Amino acid sequence: MTKQERAARTREALIRSAAREFDEHGYALARLSAISTGAGVSPGALHFHFENKPAVAAAVEQEASNALRRAARLVHRQGANALQNLADTTHALARLLREDIVVRAGYRLSCSRGCRTDLNLRQEWQSCVQQRLAEAADEGLLAGGHGGQQNLVRTVVAATVGLEALCRDNPEWLAPGTVTGMWRALLPALAAPAVLADLEPAGNASVPAARAPVA
Amino acid sequence: MTKQERAARTREALIRSAAREFDEHGYALARLSAISTGAGVSPGALHFHFENKPAVAAAVEQEASNALRRAARLVHRQGANALQNLADTTHALARLLREDIVVRAGYRLSCSRGCRTDLNLRQEWQSCVQQRLAEAADEGLLAGGHGGQQNLVRTVVAATVGLEALCRDNPEWLAPGTVTGMWRALLPALAAPAVLADLEPAGNASVPAARAPVA
Repeated sequence: MTKQERAARTREALIRSAAREFDEHGYALARLSAISTGAGVSPGALHFHFENKPAVAAAVEQEASNALRRAARLVHRQGANALQNLADTTHALARLLREDIVVRAGYRLSCSRGCRTDLNLRQEWQSCVQQRLAEAADEGLLAGGHGGQQNLVRTVVAATVGLEALCRDNPEWLAPGTVTGMWRALLPALAAPAVLADLEPAGNASVPAARAPVA
Repeated sequence: MTKQERAARTREALIRSAAREFDEHGYALARLSAISTGAGVSPGALHFHFENKPAVAAAVEQEASNALRRAARLVHRQGANALQNLADTTHALARLLREDIVVRAGYRLSCSRGCRTDLNLRQEWQSCVQQRLAEAADEGLLAGGHGGQQNLVRTVVAATVGLEALCRDNPEWLAPGTVTGMWRALLPALAAPAVLADLEPAGNASVPAARAPVA
């Protein structure tokens, strides 16, 4: 293993350890000493990679953002229609939030106050929902009677952000069955009657995970 | 003013000051000294009313719970059908969360980890949604095609919890227009076609505030 490879591995171990520490104690109470210990390295090694706590948090957020974007891109490449794509993306993101501590911690850091980077993962998700529903409108997939596409965007964003918030107390809220149930309830409001029967609220099972699950 | 009245006023001022401190800094970083200063009383006066920080937080949560329950009861007394009642209740709670710092801080404390009392305001809200939708089913108001009432309950709970979570960054998410837009999008999924036209997504404007707005 070259020196560069070792440095990359140490950095990754630090990010994962930091994610665990932020997940357990929150940003304010997370300790750098616990992060280096958790990664099995010295405090000096941590400071070689990260100047301070905000820099560690920014790296966790950046990793989470990369993973979420990659997952959305992979779903998009499946080429399903825009509404199915939206449901599939939600399932893929829920899976990442359930299984990948770096994604979960990074998302939550990005949503909490007092720890701002240029990233805003909720804002990125809202843009994704907006884009998919605009495509769905272009493809003639949307139902009427909702008083404007913006109402649909906000409702989907609120419901999905709500699932993640509720999941902090009870992981069942991001379980595949719960996400499927939400789409079963929402699709009749979103989809034109003619396309409803072709949509699968449980998502397209062939969508791969964007990142190997991290314990 | 009797001694008892003065004590009650001091307690109320402390709860309001605590709500401001928790709202601004979060539970972990909130300081008792800032709470007593904010209420215009001595640290000794604070300790006369509250043993420690968890006790102050519990009092804020209890006040929030009382206000939210009172609001739900007032809406219920209006005697609208169960679906209209649910929309009206959401508007009343959104208003309290927007306008009353004690309700807002108490709700957030109750949803954050590491600060648990017996209260769980999200759980109370979920029970309320569940009850209204069960009544709506009894009254024959619900649409079909959603794969089970539980899917509707979870979707409404997720969407409303999501609005509150999103509101922390941008108050527009709990503005009357956003709540109305959510109901415009959701009601076609929830309500049987025959009753849809009679429902008012903007809520019944005659519903009174449950608590005077607090600055």
